[in-house]
Amino acid sequence: MKQIYFDNAASTKVDEIVLEAMRPYFTEKYANASSVHEMGKEAKKALEDSRKTIAKSIGASADEIYFTSGGTEANNFAIKGLFFEQKKSGSSKNHVITTKIEHDCVLNSCKWLETQGAEVTYLDVDKDGFVNPEAIKNAITDKTFLVTIIHGNNEIGTIQDIEEIAKICHEKNVLFHTDACQSFTKVPIDVKKMKLDFVTLNAHKIHGPKGVGALYIKKGANITPLFHGGGHERGLRSGTENVSGVVGFAKAAEIADKKHVQYMTDLRNKIIDGVLKIHGVRLNGPMPSKEDRRLCNNINISFENVDGEVVGGYLENAGIYTSTGSACMSHSSKTSHVLKAIGLNDDKAANSLRISISRFTTQEDVDFFLENIEKILKKFVK
Amino acid sequence: MKQIYFDNAASTKVDEIVLEAMRPYFTEKYANASSVHEMGKEAKKALEDSRKTIAKSIGASADEIYFTSGGTEANNFAIKGLFFEQKKSGSSKNHVITTKIEHDCVLNSCKWLETQGAEVTYLDVDKDGFVNPEAIKNAITDKTFLVTIIHGNNEIGTIQDIEEIAKICHEKNVLFHTDACQSFTKVPIDVKKMKLDFVTLNAHKIHGPKGVGALYIKKGANITPLFHGGGHERGLRSGTENVSGVVGFAKAAEIADKKHVQYMTDLRNKIIDGVLKIHGVRLNGPMPSKEDRRLCNNINISFENVDGEVVGGYLENAGIYTSTGSACMSHSSKTSHVLKAIGLNDDKAANSLRISISRFTTQEDVDFFLENIEKILKKFVK
Repeated sequence: MKQIYFDNAASTKVDEIVLEAMRPYFTEKYANASSVHEMGKEAKKALEDSRKTIAKSIGASADEIYFTSGGTEANNFAIKGLFFEQKKSGSSKNHVITTKIEHDCVLNSCKWLETQGAEVTYLDVDKDGFVNPEAIKNAITDKTFLVTIIHGNNEIGTIQDIEEIAKICHEKNVLFHTDACQSFTKVPIDVKKMKLDFVTLNAHKIHGPKGVGALYIKKGANITPLFHGGGHERGLRSGTENVSGVVGFAKAAEIADKKHVQYMTDLRNKIIDGVLKIHGVRLNGPMPSKEDRRLCNNINISFENVDGEVVGGYLENAGIYTSTGSACMSHSSKTSHVLKAIGLNDDKAANSLRISISRFTTQEDVDFFLENIEKILKKFVK
Repeated sequence: MKQIYFDNAASTKVDEIVLEAMRPYFTEKYANASSVHEMGKEAKKALEDSRKTIAKSIGASADEIYFTSGGTEANNFAIKGLFFEQKKSGSSKNHVITTKIEHDCVLNSCKWLETQGAEVTYLDVDKDGFVNPEAIKNAITDKTFLVTIIHGNNEIGTIQDIEEIAKICHEKNVLFHTDACQSFTKVPIDVKKMKLDFVTLNAHKIHGPKGVGALYIKKGANITPLFHGGGHERGLRSGTENVSGVVGFAKAAEIADKKHVQYMTDLRNKIIDGVLKIHGVRLNGPMPSKEDRRLCNNINISFENVDGEVVGGYLENAGIYTSTGSACMSHSSKTSHVLKAIGLNDDKAANSLRISISRFTTQEDVDFFLENIEKILKKFVK
């Protein structure tokens, strides 16, 4: 049976080119990159070359990239590490500003910090998921040390204006962190031009392996490690370097191309145009536009009177794999906090479906999907 | 040129069988294990089957295994997680007992906790690296919540009697954690029989991939997560599951065999017998014996009047890769804290070399090594 994978926001297929690049680091060049002999140096070189590649992809210097085990670690590291660094420096600043549409790993890191003496402001967003930069400005107090806001939202695809937000933060002398797991390689990021302080990246959303990510830390910024130990990653992230994973991460970033973004954008628009013609379907997140503030691979729709899980189930019967929200939230049965934040009530939020495509998605996949979803939704017209 | 890899305590070659098992989870079965569709369930099944395999290898239940990004994360998780859990529960217990020969990730986690209100006792060890169980008993106070002691030492191979230590801890109502990264699959571990509470394991020391490990958490024990987020790993370790890595970890554990241990033990003994015949060489860590309290793959020796790095350099010229200590310590130029703890002064500690073999080591490798080290050391006889 046909298998159409429309859950690329959850994870992506590792590109064969990426796996090929990783392969030697499992069975041939397997030394510890911290070993001082030639085999160790060979692994170290691969690690440092990869660091340069990742750095280049966001306009950073290599020594500003710290490899982690993924986006969740990088977000925990940034948020908790900056909180503990405040405490260490004797600062009385304890206030973090974020939004109501962050990934759970940001929200739950913030919630945990509240048990450790932090105060957190969770800002509202508008009906398309945009946070108002003015609201950020107004929320900053003399206790604020960090603003952390997701770049491209994982559920509804909203792309925040992080350059504008960073500007506000710097005017107020507050650090700015953005979770760019979904936007990386899809939306241009230039940490120097945009004046970003901390950026979370990961590999498995861009056809790289699971278990690898990075935190960009602006040169000169101080942060307390999440992992203490042997002093790897210039003392900020201990643990034997995952050389094969990092090599795969860099290869995935290297082969990502602007033309893939255009390709996905065209397919996304075709899907959005198609589904909006169906009675009762509405789009969650911003409409595609000239400025395009929506991720090129994200479609999120709500239905009039049928549960997203039911529609997803019918689609799955046809071999099409979609999702009703963040895979990371499948552990709880709660309603999407993102859809609620853009104004959907519990029922409407439950009647939603996320379709996330990739550069491996074909025109035929899209046509097949549109045929099927139309057929399925017709069953439920009252 | 011949390449003989004698740095297996730092990292090991991934077994081809392991890589073969991992392969489908990169490019075919690549869904997020938390996705609820069939492709997600396929990944989830691989994850849960792997969990059963790891659990079985230490006599645990599957739901007591929590996958991490490696040993450093698991040790940080156990030590910090239990400290923050004490605080959370309102307990006034803040005392940790460990030894002076732990891996840096245990020592530096403990040191960081001291900045957060913990008190830590660093116990001495004897000339072979053994901690005296009586010393542990005497160090326990009514403030002690945790004893954390390495099972098989990464530098000198000393295997502690963790069953005896766990017994003492339980008599005193204190939790016991052991870092078993080096001993896993080499020394039998049965968490039920030995009554262990927390055990750190990792993959890349047993011919599995880098970037994967696990923490065994005894059923019913409470711990605060190091990674907050989507609630993966039953809420205790968030982050997209590294399916290919975990599958590789399980395969590596599954194919590890008692006969490999005997094979390595024989080679180790041959090396020890050989080097001790050379003038001025002494063994660090316990002598092989009937009870054998030394890791089967570890040899650590000191020389009379020549630096370990010099000897290592000559060996490397012959194609033999050894190490002067923990790879994780190569980031600092400090003298080995382990060798100092067993009584070596700075000079003697610097005059040391670690040779760590694997089941891929051959008789010929050993013979070649012995010929070479004898030749090299002869140059330095005064």
